[in-house]
Amino acid sequence: MERSCLAIVLAAGESTRMKSSMSKVLHPIGGRPMIAHVMESLAEAGISATALVLGRDAEAVEKVARRDEMAVSSYLQTERLGTAHAVLAAGAAIADGYDDILVVFGDTPLITAAPLLAARKGLAEGNDVVVIGFETTSPTGYGRLIVENGALVAIREEKDASEAERKITYCNGGLMAIDGRKALSLIEKIGNANAKGEYYLTDIVEVANAAGGSAIAVAAPETELMGCNNRAELAGIEAVWQRRRRHELMVSGVSMIAPETVFLAYDTAIAQDVLIEPNVVFGPGVTIESGAVIHAFSHLEGAHVGAGATVGPYARLRPGANLGPDSKVGNFCEVKKAEIGAGAKVNHLTYIGDAFVGAKTNIGAGTITCNYDGVNKHITQIGANAFIGSNSSLVAPVSVGDGALVASGSVITDDVPADAVAFGRAHQTIKPGRAKVLREQYLAEKAERKKSSAE
Amino acid sequence: MERSCLAIVLAAGESTRMKSSMSKVLHPIGGRPMIAHVMESLAEAGISATALVLGRDAEAVEKVARRDEMAVSSYLQTERLGTAHAVLAAGAAIADGYDDILVVFGDTPLITAAPLLAARKGLAEGNDVVVIGFETTSPTGYGRLIVENGALVAIREEKDASEAERKITYCNGGLMAIDGRKALSLIEKIGNANAKGEYYLTDIVEVANAAGGSAIAVAAPETELMGCNNRAELAGIEAVWQRRRRHELMVSGVSMIAPETVFLAYDTAIAQDVLIEPNVVFGPGVTIESGAVIHAFSHLEGAHVGAGATVGPYARLRPGANLGPDSKVGNFCEVKKAEIGAGAKVNHLTYIGDAFVGAKTNIGAGTITCNYDGVNKHITQIGANAFIGSNSSLVAPVSVGDGALVASGSVITDDVPADAVAFGRAHQTIKPGRAKVLREQYLAEKAERKKSSAE
Amino acid sequence: MERSCLAIVLAAGESTRMKSSMSKVLHPIGGRPMIAHVMESLAEAGISATALVLGRDAEAVEKVARRDEMAVSSYLQTERLGTAHAVLAAGAAIADGYDDILVVFGDTPLITAAPLLAARKGLAEGNDVVVIGFETTSPTGYGRLIVENGALVAIREEKDASEAERKITYCNGGLMAIDGRKALSLIEKIGNANAKGEYYLTDIVEVANAAGGSAIAVAAPETELMGCNNRAELAGIEAVWQRRRRHELMVSGVSMIAPETVFLAYDTAIAQDVLIEPNVVFGPGVTIESGAVIHAFSHLEGAHVGAGATVGPYARLRPGANLGPDSKVGNFCEVKKAEIGAGAKVNHLTYIGDAFVGAKTNIGAGTITCNYDGVNKHITQIGANAFIGSNSSLVAPVSVGDGALVASGSVITDDVPADAVAFGRAHQTIKPGRAKVLREQYLAEKAERKKSSAE
Repeated sequence: MERSCLAIVLAAGESTRMKSSMSKVLHPIGGRPMIAHVMESLAEAGISATALVLGRDAEAVEKVARRDEMAVSSYLQTERLGTAHAVLAAGAAIADGYDDILVVFGDTPLITAAPLLAARKGLAEGNDVVVIGFETTSPTGYGRLIVENGALVAIREEKDASEAERKITYCNGGLMAIDGRKALSLIEKIGNANAKGEYYLTDIVEVANAAGGSAIAVAAPETELMGCNNRAELAGIEAVWQRRRRHELMVSGVSMIAPETVFLAYDTAIAQDVLIEPNVVFGPGVTIESGAVIHAFSHLEGAHVGAGATVGPYARLRPGANLGPDSKVGNFCEVKKAEIGAGAKVNHLTYIGDAFVGAKTNIGAGTITCNYDGVNKHITQIGANAFIGSNSSLVAPVSVGDGALVASGSVITDDVPADAVAFGRAHQTIKPGRAKVLREQYLAEKAERKKSSAE
Repeated sequence: MERSCLAIVLAAGESTRMKSSMSKVLHPIGGRPMIAHVMESLAEAGISATALVLGRDAEAVEKVARRDEMAVSSYLQTERLGTAHAVLAAGAAIADGYDDILVVFGDTPLITAAPLLAARKGLAEGNDVVVIGFETTSPTGYGRLIVENGALVAIREEKDASEAERKITYCNGGLMAIDGRKALSLIEKIGNANAKGEYYLTDIVEVANAAGGSAIAVAAPETELMGCNNRAELAGIEAVWQRRRRHELMVSGVSMIAPETVFLAYDTAIAQDVLIEPNVVFGPGVTIESGAVIHAFSHLEGAHVGAGATVGPYARLRPGANLGPDSKVGNFCEVKKAEIGAGAKVNHLTYIGDAFVGAKTNIGAGTITCNYDGVNKHITQIGANAFIGSNSSLVAPVSVGDGALVASGSVITDDVPADAVAFGRAHQTIKPGRAKVLREQYLAEKAERKKSSAE
Repeated sequence: MERSCLAIVLAAGESTRMKSSMSKVLHPIGGRPMIAHVMESLAEAGISATALVLGRDAEAVEKVARRDEMAVSSYLQTERLGTAHAVLAAGAAIADGYDDILVVFGDTPLITAAPLLAARKGLAEGNDVVVIGFETTSPTGYGRLIVENGALVAIREEKDASEAERKITYCNGGLMAIDGRKALSLIEKIGNANAKGEYYLTDIVEVANAAGGSAIAVAAPETELMGCNNRAELAGIEAVWQRRRRHELMVSGVSMIAPETVFLAYDTAIAQDVLIEPNVVFGPGVTIESGAVIHAFSHLEGAHVGAGATVGPYARLRPGANLGPDSKVGNFCEVKKAEIGAGAKVNHLTYIGDAFVGAKTNIGAGTITCNYDGVNKHITQIGANAFIGSNSSLVAPVSVGDGALVASGSVITDDVPADAVAFGRAHQTIKPGRAKVLREQYLAEKAERKKSSAE
């Protein structure tokens, strides 16, 4: 497509019904601000220039909306006088001259490139205005698209619709494409002779038709046009987004026993023949190689899981966790900024942070890398084929050599050479019969307490 | 509303299909016995006197049904001869004289005050009987409400209904309001000339009409009238209840990424701008202040989470957990009967019970407050700005002063003064080359075992 | 039913849309390969001989399909020339002579015995072919069953159907029963004069009718005929299977607060009056006795939970975990190959593996049985009424006697006699004022680091 296109993204709303301390369009879907989803679809539709119309949190919104491949400019809408007024806030950008103007909303993050491309195609075919609509089984409340002989005659608001028009199930989605050469003059003709005294962009259809121009509608799936006015709708959009991504992954060869309990981020990358058990949450930045198994109740963020590795149940991989092939991170284990070597095992109740664990090394249950002294973080180096006994504390900076063995319950403060055994625990002493005595003493204390609390 | 009202709650059923060792109405919805939900809606409808008709587990049911603002009396139904018979078990209460009698069921916990108020309004307007009905798309099996010119002519059971009547989608919900002055005489006129020989309260409509009185129906949403006959229906009611509460919280400004995976209790209180990630379970008694984040896989009960605090993933807050503002309780941590000071951090694999943790103190991974000696519980006091090294055991009763530092892997049995360092761990010893020897020995043992098991 | 029956299970598909390294029929539903579900339904329908038609992974498929009560033979389909061709791969088995031939698919694991029995009944009543169909609201894409006066005239593929035939909602499920004496001759008459040049078993209806025979259809619920072509459909089948099993358990007296979050295995056995909280995952081999409570976020596999026992939240029971009555395994605890005695408590952050824990013994938080030396596993024996202090390491092989007490933070390497106290921890030392000095030193290091990284 050789035609130039400016997308105008309306994102200035106060969004009071969100009851939020931040702008609606900053709320995340799939772990990413919703406006960033809109921007990605614009990029996929080949649009290279975007004008943001901003209000609340303008700076933060602009920051998350920016994309490398696209020129993004921002305009403040200081008064709220309707959507046509909002578009005119970006009038200077329109005046720069584009073949196509595309008007989209910052709070419809489910929109894909397809209807945007269809709308632009409508312009290329000579129409002045192309409205993106949707077929619905529940049209109540939406503006109806009045189409005659393929032409979009008007958008009729519910309250103005006749009985017959109310039966129309083809409704206005709000997004539209406008001929770039006519856009400014058409929008400027829109009036505000209505109950609220606002300038509605939807009036452009009648304006264009009155000027002898032509308008049409193109259809998008209803879900792609879901907007967000409160946090229940936010959750509804998230649900559709998650279903879409899970389905894409499943048909690409990922098994999910209960997909409805797997929560993906926008950039979650999972290879073929990976099994995801129920109740797994992905934060941003996760990649999983083929043959890995993510057991139930796992939580991954910023982590890489190598081929054939096993994670969980109840494993938490935090940013910088890098699991080698066929390694294993098991229940109640946390791994952060750490390499887990090929075939190494971190199976139970363990914290590995700021560490390197060599291939085939076994980390016993309850092991803690003590990486923090309250001020600084330090590194723990563990070699290959080592064995760290259960309940050990490795006080970083410290290293354990290849093939070394740390006895259970040890506190390791000094480096352990390869193939050495390190102990750091007290000898056991036994006091025969003493438990009986102690228990009687404890029971006496308990009786005493009860007595005093009763007094 | 100046009219006096007695609510009669029918809760005497055997509920054999629940296959339960306790009465159906004791089964919880949102963490509270279902009959307690009914009682709350009665209170919200301004009803000040309630008569419980009880059978199985009468004492336990009465106990959970009691409310401070309401007079609650109990009557035993010793035989099961139908709903009219059940109501007459509370005949003495009716005879006390009320303007309105409201008959509800102990096993319809989703009923809200609105239809109860509507039914009472129907009495105030001069009707003798007001039946609460519902519109449904699946009327099969329900009694149909035969309404003519606004009057409720009859309730027609499915089996007695004509072809035309079966098409009626307005059905009997079972709950009803009856003129208090006529209630006893109307109910006593109900006969038992039917297949089961039971006295059905629904027959009151025809009785009232025959006596020249007037009956009407008022509608409630179908879900509010859901009853509970087995545990699958119990789960269905729970699902509706949870959806309702989640929605209320979301529109009030709480974000839930996957509301369908968040399980609330009847008294869960969450402030605006709190984020609840997927898979969070709330037991009773939780309050969460604004700006807090509850990460995935957290379980909270009887806990308070201060403003801006962070919980989870995989955090368990048990009764008495009180998290200060901006504090953090992280993965695989359990907090019970403990204050966590402002900005304090309990991040990994830790048990804090019967303890005070001062502001900005850092509790290392794997720390355990040893609060129990097998008989008594003891207190651990930790000051502000302290640092507890990883894998430490704090043997209560014990205190750690402000700014003190406990070395990793220590067992602390004596109080640690402010700004002191405490060690309680063995020195490390190294045996060079010993790991190799041990490993060979272990392998030899393994070979020996295999050999003997093969013999 | 006295008639003999051979079931032919078609399981030779390449299943390329699964994008899987293994045959489709090996993918699990409820923790068991889907073909094993089909085999179980065949057994329930009283079928004693089955011929598997195999392709990919033939050996593995045969292994999981085998059943003790059934003769199972296997046939390789080397070319893929349609379903009739596939059935003929088992021609030798058909030729052995059976009253009934039943053709089913390895990838429809939701089929139950009922429609199979209905189809066989159709044969017993004298029909040559009985097709299993289903009523659906979305027939598009399915072959329609053309039934006239009770006889199945033809199966009409979508593309060949007239406008009127497309409105038929009774569709072909693919499974069918064929008169055993005529099966071979009928199937051999099926031609391949179609677009793909394949031999379609569905053509047998017209073949049988043309030969003066009779065909009928019997209906199964649509869900029982769900097939599996990709992993999204696999998840859809799993969802139906889970719903079915959860419902069976609930109506039998098991409470589930949120059944949609409970994931069962094919053999999960739960007694009456057990409560399952949200988010519980069952692997194979679990039995739970009456009165037990499984709290949220628990994961059980190969485990037995005694009457009145409490599990979780966040408990992981692995194969060989055997919890006695009224015992308790709590948060962040893992139990593997271990007996937990009646009334014993394993409440927090503990790993118990290869161990025996006596009745009423209390295992403190953070206890680890160190059962593995890197090569061999060893046993830990703990008596009754013992008390293991928090953060202890029990280095197996080791035993702790009845009533013994292990001090918190101990490493236990030698046996502890009954009623003795065992210590295995260092004495505490205090360095007054030292924390302040250290903190300043750490801060200086931090400043130094920043400086060097800035240079």
